[in-house]
Amino acid sequence: MIKIDAITLFPEMFSPMEVSIMGRAQKAGILDFNTVQLRDFAINEYGQVDDAPYGGEAGMVLRPEPLAQAIKHCQKTKTQSTVIHLCPDGKTFDQQMAQELAHKEHLILVCGHYKGIDQRIRDKYVDMEVSLGDFVISGGELAAMMLSDAVVRLIPGVLNRFESAETDSFSQNMLAWPIYTRPEEFEGLKVPKVLLSGHHKNIKQWQKAQALKITQEKRPDLLKKTELSDEDLRLL
Amino acid sequence: MIKIDAITLFPEMFSPMEVSIMGRAQKAGILDFNTVQLRDFAINEYGQVDDAPYGGEAGMVLRPEPLAQAIKHCQKTKTQSTVIHLCPDGKTFDQQMAQELAHKEHLILVCGHYKGIDQRIRDKYVDMEVSLGDFVISGGELAAMMLSDAVVRLIPGVLNRFESAETDSFSQNMLAWPIYTRPEEFEGLKVPKVLLSGHHKNIKQWQKAQALKITQEKRPDLLKKTELSDEDLRLL
Repeated sequence: MIKIDAITLFPEMFSPMEVSIMGRAQKAGILDFNTVQLRDFAINEYGQVDDAPYGGEAGMVLRPEPLAQAIKHCQKTKTQSTVIHLCPDGKTFDQQMAQELAHKEHLILVCGHYKGIDQRIRDKYVDMEVSLGDFVISGGELAAMMLSDAVVRLIPGVLNRFESAETDSFSQNMLAWPIYTRPEEFEGLKVPKVLLSGHHKNIKQWQKAQALKITQEKRPDLLKKTELSDEDLRLL
Repeated sequence: MIKIDAITLFPEMFSPMEVSIMGRAQKAGILDFNTVQLRDFAINEYGQVDDAPYGGEAGMVLRPEPLAQAIKHCQKTKTQSTVIHLCPDGKTFDQQMAQELAHKEHLILVCGHYKGIDQRIRDKYVDMEVSLGDFVISGGELAAMMLSDAVVRLIPGVLNRFESAETDSFSQNMLAWPIYTRPEEFEGLKVPKVLLSGHHKNIKQWQKAQALKITQEKRPDLLKKTELSDEDLRLL
């Protein structure tokens, strides 16, 4: 069981967490997902949570007091919490980080919005800063859901045996091989013969060779991280 | 005006597109966002859209016929469409790709789910394959929304002058500098004095120096892509 709290001004953005595999993980009691409305910790009766930045640049910045209160509120519920701030200058999220986070008891995801959050929260309250990639989006909410999905699906019991993560891209520093399903012929394009052969060993070898070739072509940087066996090298 | 169609089995996951800046872009007529339910193009009256993969691995695969029909249905509405398949082995999405896509008239986003989509759709119908990063999630929906958000906010008129994207991370191959707002002192931590000085030139110089230092510390790979001026080198 993992608990994930997302601190946000837009809890209505989190409907994807109720659907498909994430929804099932919640119903199965493996995931306890909650949104925490930052405005409940506003500094005044007008619901103020942001202010203009010092130094006169553009954009509004989330003030430190409401964020500190919201984080402390979440921390009360568990003894071991990891506070993660989603921001473009964090450490780039990847499958290895997902695997590490899948062992945590409680993640508190701080979703910035507008221009960002006050630096002092980053300095004093945040354990990890995570970026989903080298691009900018309107807020941390989509990033928080993406991180949650990648992490939760690695927890035993979330995926059934048909959805096994073992053949996913990146599970062995390798991209996935091409997949085909019915019909055998589609608009003149046929399924590779080997896949119809029923010859298990040949199929496995073809898949491995395809995965190696695709990875070498599209992401040679991944292959460099892998120790290739003699057989792998023959297939390449 | 950009039109974005997302082909998906889970249209209910797209509620974030109605909120905040994306919701505003739709109301302002700058973004025409639609979901297209793949099941409307099922191969039979039972609503079947997937099938077991050839070769006997685990997972279900989206069949080619419904996807082809759904893509053609979307293409009918515009003369220039770009079909993008979101998948972990695509080209890694970044701010430069977002800038390029912001000039397109019509994006058709194909959201895989389960084990993925039949390779023949990728070979014959897809113009671009895009990955959000080196990790695996349950489907392309969150990735499609993230791409849409990053792209749409770059279209003139979407952000107001207070939200200007000019000072965002990655806009100059540089991470953002630290931002501070009220109060001046928070739990013993003070706002850097220079930001309170009112001295515009000193503030700009401090911000530039901070951005350079943070980028050098966290992401030296980004700095290598930038031509640094003599002044930049002095600040570093």
